[in-house]
Amino acid sequence: MTTATATKYVFSFGDGKADGGATMKNELGGKGANLAEMTSIGLPVPAGFTISTGVCTYYYDNGETYPEQLRDDVAAALEKIEKAMGAKFGCTENPLLLSCRSGARESMPGMMDTVLNIGLNDTTVAALAKKSGNEQFAWDSYRRFVQMYGDVVLEMKTLDKKEIDPFEHLLEVKKEAEGVEFDSGLSAAGLKELVREFKAAIKERTGNDFPDEPLDQLWGAIGAVFSSWMNDRAMVYRRQYGIPHEWGTAVNVQAMVFGNLSDDSASGVGLTRDCSLGEPGFRGDYLINAQGEDVVAGIRSTKRVEESLHDDMPAAFDRLNEIGKILEKHYKDVQDIEFTVQHGQVWMLQTRNAKRTGFAAVRIAVDLVNEGLIDPKEALNPRRIPADDLNQLLQPIFDPDAKAAADAEGRLLTKGINAGPGATYGKICFHAEDAEAQYNADNDVQLILVRRETSPEDLRGMQAAKGILTAFGGASSHAALVSRQMGKVCIVGATELDIDYQAGTMSVGGKSFNEGDYISIDGFTGEVFEGSVTTKPSEVLDVVIHKAGDPEKSETYKRYAQLMEWVDEHRTLNVRTNADSPEQAAEAIAFGAEGIGLCRTEHMFFHHVDEIREMILAETKEVRQKAIDKLLPYQRSDFEGLFRAMEGRPVTVRLLDPPLHEFLSERHLEEDPALAGQLAKMTGKSQEEIHRRVEGLHESNPMLGHRGCRLGIVYPEITAMQARAIMEAACAVKKEGIDVHPEIMIPLVGFLAEFKDQEKIVRAQAEAVMAETGQKVEYMVGTMIEVPRAAVCADQIATGAEFFSFGTNDLTQTALGISRDDYGGFIGYYREHDIVPNDPFQTIDFDGVGGLMKIGVEGGRSSRKDLKIGICGEHGGDPASVKFCHSIGLNYVSCSPFRVPIARLAAAQAAVSQG
Amino acid sequence: MTTATATKYVFSFGDGKADGGATMKNELGGKGANLAEMTSIGLPVPAGFTISTGVCTYYYDNGETYPEQLRDDVAAALEKIEKAMGAKFGCTENPLLLSCRSGARESMPGMMDTVLNIGLNDTTVAALAKKSGNEQFAWDSYRRFVQMYGDVVLEMKTLDKKEIDPFEHLLEVKKEAEGVEFDSGLSAAGLKELVREFKAAIKERTGNDFPDEPLDQLWGAIGAVFSSWMNDRAMVYRRQYGIPHEWGTAVNVQAMVFGNLSDDSASGVGLTRDCSLGEPGFRGDYLINAQGEDVVAGIRSTKRVEESLHDDMPAAFDRLNEIGKILEKHYKDVQDIEFTVQHGQVWMLQTRNAKRTGFAAVRIAVDLVNEGLIDPKEALNPRRIPADDLNQLLQPIFDPDAKAAADAEGRLLTKGINAGPGATYGKICFHAEDAEAQYNADNDVQLILVRRETSPEDLRGMQAAKGILTAFGGASSHAALVSRQMGKVCIVGATELDIDYQAGTMSVGGKSFNEGDYISIDGFTGEVFEGSVTTKPSEVLDVVIHKAGDPEKSETYKRYAQLMEWVDEHRTLNVRTNADSPEQAAEAIAFGAEGIGLCRTEHMFFHHVDEIREMILAETKEVRQKAIDKLLPYQRSDFEGLFRAMEGRPVTVRLLDPPLHEFLSERHLEEDPALAGQLAKMTGKSQEEIHRRVEGLHESNPMLGHRGCRLGIVYPEITAMQARAIMEAACAVKKEGIDVHPEIMIPLVGFLAEFKDQEKIVRAQAEAVMAETGQKVEYMVGTMIEVPRAAVCADQIATGAEFFSFGTNDLTQTALGISRDDYGGFIGYYREHDIVPNDPFQTIDFDGVGGLMKIGVEGGRSSRKDLKIGICGEHGGDPASVKFCHSIGLNYVSCSPFRVPIARLAAAQAAVSQG
Repeated sequence: MTTATATKYVFSFGDGKADGGATMKNELGGKGANLAEMTSIGLPVPAGFTISTGVCTYYYDNGETYPEQLRDDVAAALEKIEKAMGAKFGCTENPLLLSCRSGARESMPGMMDTVLNIGLNDTTVAALAKKSGNEQFAWDSYRRFVQMYGDVVLEMKTLDKKEIDPFEHLLEVKKEAEGVEFDSGLSAAGLKELVREFKAAIKERTGNDFPDEPLDQLWGAIGAVFSSWMNDRAMVYRRQYGIPHEWGTAVNVQAMVFGNLSDDSASGVGLTRDCSLGEPGFRGDYLINAQGEDVVAGIRSTKRVEESLHDDMPAAFDRLNEIGKILEKHYKDVQDIEFTVQHGQVWMLQTRNAKRTGFAAVRIAVDLVNEGLIDPKEALNPRRIPADDLNQLLQPIFDPDAKAAADAEGRLLTKGINAGPGATYGKICFHAEDAEAQYNADNDVQLILVRRETSPEDLRGMQAAKGILTAFGGASSHAALVSRQMGKVCIVGATELDIDYQAGTMSVGGKSFNEGDYISIDGFTGEVFEGSVTTKPSEVLDVVIHKAGDPEKSETYKRYAQLMEWVDEHRTLNVRTNADSPEQAAEAIAFGAEGIGLCRTEHMFFHHVDEIREMILAETKEVRQKAIDKLLPYQRSDFEGLFRAMEGRPVTVRLLDPPLHEFLSERHLEEDPALAGQLAKMTGKSQEEIHRRVEGLHESNPMLGHRGCRLGIVYPEITAMQARAIMEAACAVKKEGIDVHPEIMIPLVGFLAEFKDQEKIVRAQAEAVMAETGQKVEYMVGTMIEVPRAAVCADQIATGAEFFSFGTNDLTQTALGISRDDYGGFIGYYREHDIVPNDPFQTIDFDGVGGLMKIGVEGGRSSRKDLKIGICGEHGGDPASVKFCHSIGLNYVSCSPFRVPIARLAAAQAAVSQG
Repeated sequence: MTTATATKYVFSFGDGKADGGATMKNELGGKGANLAEMTSIGLPVPAGFTISTGVCTYYYDNGETYPEQLRDDVAAALEKIEKAMGAKFGCTENPLLLSCRSGARESMPGMMDTVLNIGLNDTTVAALAKKSGNEQFAWDSYRRFVQMYGDVVLEMKTLDKKEIDPFEHLLEVKKEAEGVEFDSGLSAAGLKELVREFKAAIKERTGNDFPDEPLDQLWGAIGAVFSSWMNDRAMVYRRQYGIPHEWGTAVNVQAMVFGNLSDDSASGVGLTRDCSLGEPGFRGDYLINAQGEDVVAGIRSTKRVEESLHDDMPAAFDRLNEIGKILEKHYKDVQDIEFTVQHGQVWMLQTRNAKRTGFAAVRIAVDLVNEGLIDPKEALNPRRIPADDLNQLLQPIFDPDAKAAADAEGRLLTKGINAGPGATYGKICFHAEDAEAQYNADNDVQLILVRRETSPEDLRGMQAAKGILTAFGGASSHAALVSRQMGKVCIVGATELDIDYQAGTMSVGGKSFNEGDYISIDGFTGEVFEGSVTTKPSEVLDVVIHKAGDPEKSETYKRYAQLMEWVDEHRTLNVRTNADSPEQAAEAIAFGAEGIGLCRTEHMFFHHVDEIREMILAETKEVRQKAIDKLLPYQRSDFEGLFRAMEGRPVTVRLLDPPLHEFLSERHLEEDPALAGQLAKMTGKSQEEIHRRVEGLHESNPMLGHRGCRLGIVYPEITAMQARAIMEAACAVKKEGIDVHPEIMIPLVGFLAEFKDQEKIVRAQAEAVMAETGQKVEYMVGTMIEVPRAAVCADQIATGAEFFSFGTNDLTQTALGISRDDYGGFIGYYREHDIVPNDPFQTIDFDGVGGLMKIGVEGGRSSRKDLKIGICGEHGGDPASVKFCHSIGLNYVSCSPFRVPIARLAAAQAAVSQG
């Protein structure tokens, strides 16, 4: 007879030995793996065993049943606990009590179920009372067990959600009867009665007797924990944090230790160093004579380990500090622990890597390197500093006390989508022009521009405001995109806001605000507050951008600088910025940008909208040329500023991209009744002709309309003017002794013939300008890859284009057939129902858009081996997308200035995790 | 010394021998190849030589210079002509005269240049006079030569386009002076003077003397022909007919023969059989004592070969008929020839396969098979019957006499884009509802629906009209698409029309028309006529659709039927139809459709727009469900009709696709001021609420918005209702004993999760309905592939989908990032400037969209080996696209009913040309 090797489902730990260890999180969950690990390295852990996540998978794949061998395995593991603890489960003399806890690969605090004190019944409780010499403790433990088991396993709470909790009700009645304030004040007799009443309530509700048999209790608890993996709140949590439903949870069964046994017992939680700002030193909370749940319940005020434990329990205090050091040394990271002190002895119930703020993450990673615990490469591990969290070091923040006060005072108005990080406050302003005017009158004015949505004409008003708040739009809306580029605090899609431009009011939750009223917005969280909440700038921002702080004196800056040094040593991907002005370029360089990946020339155009409109209304080439000629000096001077600011770094300039109706549409004529008359006067046409021409510009799907190179092809004069402006600026700046590397980018190319048409015009201008000025400038002509055809035909296009830049905003829209202006109607539903794994406008859709990018990279490099390829979509600042770009061999990513450090860190993390 | 093998540039023919032949069209052009071929098979061809197209390529690649060896080669070939013709070029006794003609691979009639009578000067003209005994002939030849050479080589005509032609002016003066009507009436003396005057004019204009040296004349002529390859009209012609600029032209230099030598000489053109309707028998036009150019110039009335040549020149007549038979037997196709009779002897100057109408193409192909000249497979050669031309057999046509009369009377109003083939006339009607009402009052009413553009609500009005004429929109506009599907005559984009709905008038070219005035439209040509032009139905349509004619009595039908029998024997690709109604389905079956590839359920929805609007306005699932439930019986009955009509053939039903605002938008509310009130009453909401909800439906880019499966996912009730309607209908029809094969198609899927979401709903309904009815129906659930992501991720999607159907309309829009509603602003420019090879909405963009299709086919079949894949975009009826679909291994194409025979023929041609 042959026997198949049985799968191992149950892993014991105790007595300094363990079947598992820290590397086995996938099988044992985080808690189980670390209980085993702590046992192995000699730390005091109550004996126990872990039922693997494989059983959870089996459980759901097989109609909520267990593998056949599980019962025997659990029995064997139980025996080991009994041996290690010197007590017996269900024994009427020396009963062993057990806890049963969930434990997934990733911590999901509070989402799943726990049952404590398993093994108590009317006989074992007596033994416990006798053994502990504390009848009140024994019956309180019994009372807690019946209540917890009733709620979690027998689902008393969920049977009828509308009714009051029967247990809590009985407890209240009892406390009133005995005249005590806390549960802990109840007498043993009262507790005995409560247990009887609880059991009666259970019988009445469920029709069944409470299970007295300890083994039945244990299996009931195990089943409840597995079931809780699929409860609603756990599913919502996993969706939010991207945890796959397939992972499953493990179940940890462990001998009980009691912090509520006596006054030399306690329960507590702690961190091996501070996780808010990252300062070293053990800190935590504890309660004397209490169970763990009491510490987190917040009924009794906890005490601080670092303040009073040394006096309360000196031996336990020393032991905890010692354990903290052992753990940090062993895990090479800050630990978040749970402990129980039973009659003065410390027991460890949990350890895990601690969650921390971005501030703390950077400090701790740098400190651990300096303490010799890890090397710089390990400091870059994305687990230690999620690249996005670096943001927190760069943005002004709400003063934590002021924010807590605002919360407490109920000043939180609503929550939108956090689109531009940072915090700020200011006076409500509904119109961009007003914001600009107020700013011009007083450069220090604190304004929040509040709009239903923003449009390109609002640019200067947005620049003038401290923050932007919109009622509509998503994380990729105009407001969000521009704010991130400008580094403005921004919240979009705060749909509860009711904005009435006419009345000049904003209403939310029954409150109404007028222009000039103060509000505060937190771009980290999306929260909008009434009144002002004071802020403070981050130290890093002070040094890097405002050049205000002294870099030598700022510890935060020094650690940031140290980290970024390691970042640049490890990354291979270049990081550029999307910038349209010298100011943005300078900021980006301060943040470490190595070039401009996208300069959008149309942003400059919005400053000279009269000339653009004249050009649009022209009916002959001659009139058009005349209007365009007026724009040349403006463009040239804009480019000169940019080239100077970039000091020889490459600058990718995209030729005009948006459809002409962005500059002149029926909406413009409606909003400004005088405009048609002005335009008629300017062009010598009738107002009717103006209206007709503007009507003719209307498009059903502007995203797929007459824009990008399609403009430059039909109106070659525009391309010629832009190419000339770029090259005249380049030659002028070069003459000043500053090196220039313009990369002229043709947008929206789908066909090689489109590229060649535009390239010819660009090169003709470039050669002419260089001949005129006698300057020689190295320039390149390349293209955006932003429609699927360009990716599929990249081999053809690369025969002409000298570089590619993936425009993943438009590529996502076209590849998915989803307009980011219109996806509000379904994207929320899609995310909630797991139809898309991410918002594809935040993180690249790896399979679809990413698949096209791969085809584009392979095709492009098949025709031009050394083709320089970058990305200039908003995704260039998203860490997961940066990692993807690294993996498919791009040369650089380009993102808004304030995301440059994040992209640098993400690029280093991609390189490190690949190596 | 080694010598590289010299490229052969010059190919001689004459004396029954030739260097080239008919297979060498690429090198020799069509004319040159066939002159060589005719020489080889013993036909009388004046000796000559062809300079290959390779020289043309060389000429343009090398700054308009010739290969070094060319001069020697031409000299050698010239000697051969002299030998064959017994005359000498430039000889003062017995001068050889030459012609110099262009000749490209594909015939480009009249686009390039020709020079005749080369070799004449003041001395040779005397010799010619002496030799011919006809001084007037000699000097007329000289006069013609100087004029032609002056125009073509010395560019006299183009020097100043505004002035009158100097030669024509001098000629007129001379004719007046001599008092004669025709050029041919001029005296030798007068012609002598004219030659002198012509030369003086040339000297005056160009500053140079007219070249007297025959060899200079020849090289001048050769250069002019090569140059004419790149003249404007030749480039426009090539663009229109898809002839690559790279091909180049050959140059044919040939001994002159003269039809203007005497009264036993003549020039003529002919066809070896009729090419208008295809009747057998030689026919042609000739002129006695004339040069070839006189025949086509139309100054003298030509005579018909078949009517009078037998009497004028019996021997030449017999010889021509004999030559015609030899040519047809040799070329196995109808020939279009040019000939000269010189002193009674027939000389052949040209032969080529004749162009023919669709009618003639079918008749000739079938006749040639019956005559044993070709086999059925060869009859399917696309060169013989371009699949598109089959159209002409299926559509009513203008009575040719009536149309000629209308033309002559100047009743042609304007020309639009020919969008729906056929011809019709009727009363102008501006509103779809009026058309419907008039039709309901009188089913025989002849109406032309004239609109600025059409929308889905116009459907019933379009059905009621005989033809549709729109001022806007292109070949893929709503009007064009629906017309083709309905088989309606249709012209779109007739931009000169000025339609005023309020006034009820249509103006064009200064004429104004009222509602009820008659117009006629020709959907083959895009022509719009004033008044009625009578039409006649094609015989095939009579038999196939109207079941009116007797199939046994219609020769045209019998040949069509014979051809389609061969078609079905050879093709491997199935052909389905896009149809939404039983009537369309029946028509399509008559045309040979093997199933429905696309039934658009929304077309049914427009007939029940009240219920749809109720559904749209619903705010709760319950209210929505109630509205949807009302639609169920309508949909079910629609599907029942369709299933019955299709008699067991597969029927692909696409679930609801368009965005909801197509059913209810702000435009609807504006156009019908009472509507908001009605909707408010229906739903119990305020009018303000109605407006707000409708405003909320607005989308910036509806093409990329909340539509397709995104609707069914957010509103699963709609999908469930449609699936139930389909399956209830299927079960009911099956119960009647008719087999049913529904294929339920989920639109706009990009993610597998989208498909699975909808599939689950569909299958649940299907199983429920089958359980309720006790019927078992075989059904499939599949998806459209119409966004690039679906093609790129086809391997994932095919794990769920049982079939794919490429929606190439939307796939083209998304892959190219081009909205077909908005591409009017640049597509004309793009076509003119060769930026796109075709209109991508008419013929699949093979590299881009086709590339994605290939990826989709490969990906899909990698997951599901036998995946059934079709295409249901408009491209399914385009022959070039059908060929592509065959080449990438699709199972079927689906197209509008009237294009089914064309798709069948194209499919057969694809199979034949591949084999």
